Amino acid sequence: MTISVPQVEIKKGLDEVYVKKTRISWIDGQNGKLYYRGYSIEDLAKHSTFEETAFLLWYGRLPKRDELSKFKSTLVSFRWIPDELVDLMKRVPRKAHPMDILKIGIAAAATYDPELEDMSSIANIRKAMRILAKAPTIIAAWHRIRNNQDPVEPTNDLDHAANFLYMLNGEKPDELSSRIMDVALILHAEHGMNASTFAAMVTASTLSDIYSAVVSGISALKGPLHGGANERALRMIMEVGSPENAESYVLRKLAKKERIMGFGHRVYKAYDPRAKILKEYARMLCEKKGDMRLYETAIKIEEVVLRELSRKRIFTNVDFFSGIVYHHLGIPSDLFTTIFAMARIVGWTGHVLEYWSENRIIRPRALYVGELDKKYLPIDERCTSPEERLEFIGK
Amino acid sequence: MTISVPQVEIKKGLDEVYVKKTRISWIDGQNGKLYYRGYSIEDLAKHSTFEETAFLLWYGRLPKRDELSKFKSTLVSFRWIPDELVDLMKRVPRKAHPMDILKIGIAAAATYDPELEDMSSIANIRKAMRILAKAPTIIAAWHRIRNNQDPVEPTNDLDHAANFLYMLNGEKPDELSSRIMDVALILHAEHGMNASTFAAMVTASTLSDIYSAVVSGISALKGPLHGGANERALRMIMEVGSPENAESYVLRKLAKKERIMGFGHRVYKAYDPRAKILKEYARMLCEKKGDMRLYETAIKIEEVVLRELSRKRIFTNVDFFSGIVYHHLGIPSDLFTTIFAMARIVGWTGHVLEYWSENRIIRPRALYVGELDKKYLPIDERCTSPEERLEFIGK
Repeated sequence: MTISVPQVEIKKGLDEVYVKKTRISWIDGQNGKLYYRGYSIEDLAKHSTFEETAFLLWYGRLPKRDELSKFKSTLVSFRWIPDELVDLMKRVPRKAHPMDILKIGIAAAATYDPELEDMSSIANIRKAMRILAKAPTIIAAWHRIRNNQDPVEPTNDLDHAANFLYMLNGEKPDELSSRIMDVALILHAEHGMNASTFAAMVTASTLSDIYSAVVSGISALKGPLHGGANERALRMIMEVGSPENAESYVLRKLAKKERIMGFGHRVYKAYDPRAKILKEYARMLCEKKGDMRLYETAIKIEEVVLRELSRKRIFTNVDFFSGIVYHHLGIPSDLFTTIFAMARIVGWTGHVLEYWSENRIIRPRALYVGELDKKYLPIDERCTSPEERLEFIGK
Repeated sequence: MTISVPQVEIKKGLDEVYVKKTRISWIDGQNGKLYYRGYSIEDLAKHSTFEETAFLLWYGRLPKRDELSKFKSTLVSFRWIPDELVDLMKRVPRKAHPMDILKIGIAAAATYDPELEDMSSIANIRKAMRILAKAPTIIAAWHRIRNNQDPVEPTNDLDHAANFLYMLNGEKPDELSSRIMDVALILHAEHGMNASTFAAMVTASTLSDIYSAVVSGISALKGPLHGGANERALRMIMEVGSPENAESYVLRKLAKKERIMGFGHRVYKAYDPRAKILKEYARMLCEKKGDMRLYETAIKIEEVVLRELSRKRIFTNVDFFSGIVYHHLGIPSDLFTTIFAMARIVGWTGHVLEYWSENRIIRPRALYVGELDKKYLPIDERCTSPEERLEFIGK
């Protein structure tokens, strides 16, 4: 028996399929603009802080002074992670991917949350705050543990971004580094619908808890088609090594039709506004270090790429300069994606909270094109052609 | 500034949106039929085993004798979990949800997999086998740890289902119990596109690793709109307590327009073929225990519900009898969803492997309906009406 396969369109990748209305952010890809709750990313990068931006993204408006102060002190009080969690991290193989540790850490933190199964809005936002506050502690603790150092406890004296650098390096960062880290988190906090945000939403649509949604987001962001581009862009800039090698490197890549990391974006058909901001900070950090090599190499690569590709509407994206920035903040490159996650927790949970306000379980369809009513044969009567033999067991 | 909102349709819940073609399974909802790779679920429940069914779902055909034997012995060799993982479970609060532990356990097992980042098909299916083999070990170990018992190591002498019951209860199960557990796993191994399978696919579409995909599946299945219905159905049957209370209970529920757990299904508009099989096993298990109370109560509830609702095409689904079955197999009800997960790992990974064969990152859109170009005001110039004051910090 065969079934007649209905004539339906397969929405591969769900391109151009709208899954919800949103008031959280808007990307104007044609003009290279990004807005969080109606505020331009340039204004936020200039005037706001990561904590204030998180408040804005979650609550839909900027806080008043007393609100921000209460919000910040609550976040500070949530930074702590249980000793058992640190203990647990000490038992994981040292070579583990930091994104896998972040996933385990957040999943484990859920089991300590007294409000885990409370689905009221207030409890859910408090849980989102706990996740946001604990993520840097988990990442920094893991980085120290894998290097045989004791984790540094969070301090109450520093803001979110600066406290992360402090826990990572064991010393309080200077003002410029703190501000740049803060801005990097602002720029990565939210970016509309994308695979990790959508993974978080699909998970949350079953009314699973918000930690589970974030764990799905982390799981999706780990994939190289999503996170990790800045790590590869930095590696490329380092490989190129100096400005005079840039032209031949880029042209060689383009001749081989290879992708150049840090350029091109699904939505932006103009210069990514986040890249513009990070470019300036990359320059400032390189100047401060007295070593302009990475910056100047990057600038030259960018010049050649834009000369060759801007007519195809391929421009610099956020990942091109963020690697240099993180590198000069003393962050090892295999932590870059965890920093993306640390910031994007706001976007993931923001979209989950928005979706929950008019939730519907997300269950698409798959079109069956296989066989039907096959006869079950006893095991010794089954025929297999030699090329069908399977090599499933090699190790 | 406002933007003109384009006239697009919001595909809430992605109902009737097709995301891929599949050859894995087909649900004929009108006629109450389910096929795995073209074989009817009745044939598989009668003749096959869970291991053979997993082979079928992954490879697309039934194994020959030597293939099945190699497949099974490989699965057996993968059952073991590292001591560190057991140790880690001992550090988690005892009251933790078993689904959260399964999530942590699988995420942690990833860090021990030597092939974690190897994206070849052979490595991916081997990883799927490791996940499948270790899940029962994690669940059983957790159940014993939380009851202050030592975990029972997996044995090589028992098949997948029987070994799970052995590790859970510390004694080898009888043949009937082993067979029923085996069939229950067959029935739950795959069920087309649904929220957890889709969450796994969205995650995998970024080319994240297959453990991450399964962790997303577990995260989504945890939600009460997806997993957990059999637990609630069993609770209801126990509450009703005896056949003579059934009629009034059901009519009272229906009068209040409340949902009766274990009935109705998005796709099946006929009796769920899996429920038919489990109903028979529920009867056999109750007979063996010499206690027909739960079965007879369930039968009476079903009779009244079908009398009242079958004209609305609401029929018994898989969750109605599975709770009784698990209960009489000695499984505590808060583990039911982990058993669902244990079986569905095959479906999740099967769909991921199929999707990867023509992968495209899954990134839908969200329609922006918010404000634009808002002016950033300094903190002390912000006005908030009293009703906008937020109660975000309560604890």
